Amino acid sequence: MGASLVLAYDVLRPEEKLICKAAERLGVKVQLINVTETPLPCDCRCDAAVIRPVSMFRALHAAAALWSEGVVVVNDWYTIMTSGDKVLAYAILRREGVPVPRSLYALSSRSLLKAASSMGFPLVDKPAYGSWGRLVSLIESYEVAKIVAEHREWTKSPLLQHHVVQEFIECGGTDIRCIIAFGELLGCMRRKAAAGEWRSNLALGGSAEPYKPDAELAELAIRASKPFRGFFVSVDFLHDRRRGYLVNEVNGVPEFKGFIKATGVDVAEALVRKIIEYAKK
Amino acid sequence: MGASLVLAYDVLRPEEKLICKAAERLGVKVQLINVTETPLPCDCRCDAAVIRPVSMFRALHAAAALWSEGVVVVNDWYTIMTSGDKVLAYAILRREGVPVPRSLYALSSRSLLKAASSMGFPLVDKPAYGSWGRLVSLIESYEVAKIVAEHREWTKSPLLQHHVVQEFIECGGTDIRCIIAFGELLGCMRRKAAAGEWRSNLALGGSAEPYKPDAELAELAIRASKPFRGFFVSVDFLHDRRRGYLVNEVNGVPEFKGFIKATGVDVAEALVRKIIEYAKK
Amino acid sequence: MGASLVLAYDVLRPEEKLICKAAERLGVKVQLINVTETPLPCDCRCDAAVIRPVSMFRALHAAAALWSEGVVVVNDWYTIMTSGDKVLAYAILRREGVPVPRSLYALSSRSLLKAASSMGFPLVDKPAYGSWGRLVSLIESYEVAKIVAEHREWTKSPLLQHHVVQEFIECGGTDIRCIIAFGELLGCMRRKAAAGEWRSNLALGGSAEPYKPDAELAELAIRASKPFRGFFVSVDFLHDRRRGYLVNEVNGVPEFKGFIKATGVDVAEALVRKIIEYAKK
Amino acid sequence: MGASLVLAYDVLRPEEKLICKAAERLGVKVQLINVTETPLPCDCRCDAAVIRPVSMFRALHAAAALWSEGVVVVNDWYTIMTSGDKVLAYAILRREGVPVPRSLYALSSRSLLKAASSMGFPLVDKPAYGSWGRLVSLIESYEVAKIVAEHREWTKSPLLQHHVVQEFIECGGTDIRCIIAFGELLGCMRRKAAAGEWRSNLALGGSAEPYKPDAELAELAIRASKPFRGFFVSVDFLHDRRRGYLVNEVNGVPEFKGFIKATGVDVAEALVRKIIEYAKK
Repeated sequence: MGASLVLAYDVLRPEEKLICKAAERLGVKVQLINVTETPLPCDCRCDAAVIRPVSMFRALHAAAALWSEGVVVVNDWYTIMTSGDKVLAYAILRREGVPVPRSLYALSSRSLLKAASSMGFPLVDKPAYGSWGRLVSLIESYEVAKIVAEHREWTKSPLLQHHVVQEFIECGGTDIRCIIAFGELLGCMRRKAAAGEWRSNLALGGSAEPYKPDAELAELAIRASKPFRGFFVSVDFLHDRRRGYLVNEVNGVPEFKGFIKATGVDVAEALVRKIIEYAKK
Repeated sequence: MGASLVLAYDVLRPEEKLICKAAERLGVKVQLINVTETPLPCDCRCDAAVIRPVSMFRALHAAAALWSEGVVVVNDWYTIMTSGDKVLAYAILRREGVPVPRSLYALSSRSLLKAASSMGFPLVDKPAYGSWGRLVSLIESYEVAKIVAEHREWTKSPLLQHHVVQEFIECGGTDIRCIIAFGELLGCMRRKAAAGEWRSNLALGGSAEPYKPDAELAELAIRASKPFRGFFVSVDFLHDRRRGYLVNEVNGVPEFKGFIKATGVDVAEALVRKIIEYAKK
Repeated sequence: MGASLVLAYDVLRPEEKLICKAAERLGVKVQLINVTETPLPCDCRCDAAVIRPVSMFRALHAAAALWSEGVVVVNDWYTIMTSGDKVLAYAILRREGVPVPRSLYALSSRSLLKAASSMGFPLVDKPAYGSWGRLVSLIESYEVAKIVAEHREWTKSPLLQHHVVQEFIECGGTDIRCIIAFGELLGCMRRKAAAGEWRSNLALGGSAEPYKPDAELAELAIRASKPFRGFFVSVDFLHDRRRGYLVNEVNGVPEFKGFIKATGVDVAEALVRKIIEYAKK
Repeated sequence: MGASLVLAYDVLRPEEKLICKAAERLGVKVQLINVTETPLPCDCRCDAAVIRPVSMFRALHAAAALWSEGVVVVNDWYTIMTSGDKVLAYAILRREGVPVPRSLYALSSRSLLKAASSMGFPLVDKPAYGSWGRLVSLIESYEVAKIVAEHREWTKSPLLQHHVVQEFIECGGTDIRCIIAFGELLGCMRRKAAAGEWRSNLALGGSAEPYKPDAELAELAIRASKPFRGFFVSVDFLHDRRRGYLVNEVNGVPEFKGFIKATGVDVAEALVRKIIEYAKK
């Protein structure tokens, strides 16, 4: 394709290697930038930059630094920030009228205990920041809420001391992940939690299988992704018996190794192809 | 005025008390919400909400939570986020062509040392997050850069481990703070660092005096504030002998007690008046 | 008494004020040293130093610094260290054959989960360091153990990531605190947890009443305190139906405001009197 | 030798592998215990336990847990604690009359600035805890002292917020490490700091060469190690032109890979041999 990409990373996961291989197959040159080694912005001449650091704040700042130089970035800082911060993400979804689990935001331990009392048990507590189900807790009683409240204070980080407190959606430890690239739904998979775990994250041992979306889900996935203005995002859904699909999370730097394995969709190639098409326009 | 405001806070500083008093004088009802006590969003019926938590992430999340309910918020989460994160702020200013000090972003200690070597000394190092000059360091040699690099790692917080590395603008420990409300420049003050301190922050003992802006500064202050989409922001300038005014910082939840004292401008009253005018439109 | 004391402190609690008043009544001069203000060792001429910082490490280091100068310190760093670190404290008690709850030490989250599995539920988990019941958790299931294990990792502090995992001694939320000064048992109180709380700490709302020790308890309190080599310590007991008194904690900088209220024993005066007697020998 | 050892570790460094090989050569059976995997105390039947975790608190707690069961531990918790905490170490050396650099202990940032002002520049600032020269800073001016003071506060750890403030001993970036096992000096090496670094730690790129101790050093090394009651420790010396040898640090879990390379002394074999001899007595 005679094109060139920058790939900004901190750790080279299978996803980043797949992107490099897809680019090679497509004749796209890739320049790797380790954002923990290289001051930014660096003088990078390219058609676009793919932002892939594992750390959310490294991704955010790499995206901002490259964007400030006029580079097309996938995704840009707005997408990474608004999806990476769960309070912002739910606020945006709610404002847009996209269905989400009933949620309260508690900005302190005291506030968490009040939110828990008013919402009842079981409930789910998530820190405002974090991936792979990190510190996401299923709280079944006020006693456990107190344990979580007290422990979270000792993380001494505002990123972990702000709580999203949510109703627990009973769906047997499953959720559905949709991946969307440049407005197109690439596919869906259903994840199922490992035995003895209620969180479906693959990083916590969950398993995945392909999932054929109905029209409602396909439409909702696109609609949910729009206000985050991302080129390449995943949207995770819980399925509530009464209310149907609820958005549980949006991810602006999605992992997709397990998704490829479950669905057979070559996400890396689709991504590179679409980025170059977009950048060349 | 028959109107009502919510004031979201965590600590009641003089600024918040001044806003309450101004509202009372203007016949505006104020409902105080301590965001460390009350789960959000709360059922608050009001014409607008003033977001005043001292903690940047509390301000961010309070703004997002209230905005998600359809409330007019001053400022909204976009302003608080983009001004509160210095990498985002400089990226936005740079992209808009607003003059700023020459800056590199270093997302690790190793990267800081490379940035310092390439930029030369003295230089200024700031963490991506922080107010009141916190951890802002004037680094005069590579040896001191190593001390800062090593220490910053042990904060174990991504918010403090990302560095803005900047040329040192020699201006005798002074800067100029402009406050802008709803697109109007309310006034300017010149701050001067305390003896034995190079940072001009009033929290670090700096003193303030009124400053009459020339047309260039007045125009630049408005232009710098625009891309942050804030209703009520401060913009701080350094004055470089050759290049003139350079934006050093934008603040989305500005303190203004010292500003009132120095300039005589009743910021609190202007703010309340303008919010109500805006909300009633 | 013509004597003089140094009182090393960080926060002046009621206890420190009571010590000052008792000293005044007894004609003992007191020099206050705020260890967060004054580099140590400082040139303090005195008969002895009372070590009272709230922070365990401030107490430890203040004691060590003054002791290094030849000052008699109450208590010395050995007592503060061995009682302040719960792993050391239980190791010492076990080695001495003093009865304690059945305990395992887990130095990581994985190890905590193994210890919990082998011990069964309910169990009590405590960080190696901490006062006032901080982060002490009653864990009723493996699911809650996982929540605690994961959260404790994010404190990122070795002091909180090492766990003492103990059988839960069912004694109705009560424990018995004994205070010992220079080998003499000054008295005992029974503490009872507040409603909705299982920990009996007064800081968590517990109430206190005097408790008349039987000969077994009186002997055991003295015996438990000995290996910590402290002049002034408290020993807390749980009462197990089958095994009788078990030592739950030893404190090398004990608070005693609540103890005085419950028992009427003038701890401060006894302490000052005994220190001076000891120092004058 | 028909004997058996437990080796408690967290990371298997070259040192631990050398101990295993030496034991094999000597016919000593070794049971490896990963203290981050195994709850302690574990039922370990052995003649003695070698405590080798890299983390100081893991070493401390592993030593205490095994000791509580009656196991002979090398080194025991007392040695690990008193050498691992630099305030305790200097206090003990001072009390024993062993020459050390002039030192003050500052338990806060404010106190550090006072200590720096009174001591003058250049000076060395070390946190109370840490190995491999971590956060050890050569401070050449009050401005740099302020940078260190402010940064150290944001580590939010009492282990790093307490400062040892010392005169800078000018000795060309060199120090002398002595290793002592069961009261016998095994040898000495001289370490020299890498180019552009003043700290001589091998972990920071320093180089090493054998050093033949004179009688004064040999005697002082033994004398300095005694009050720490360790079986196997290193003692590091600075050489001051006027005062001669000053103890700079004692280490209760010494690394010795570089020492073997520099001196040819088979530390691992000597250690295993002496432990078994001691345990069999």
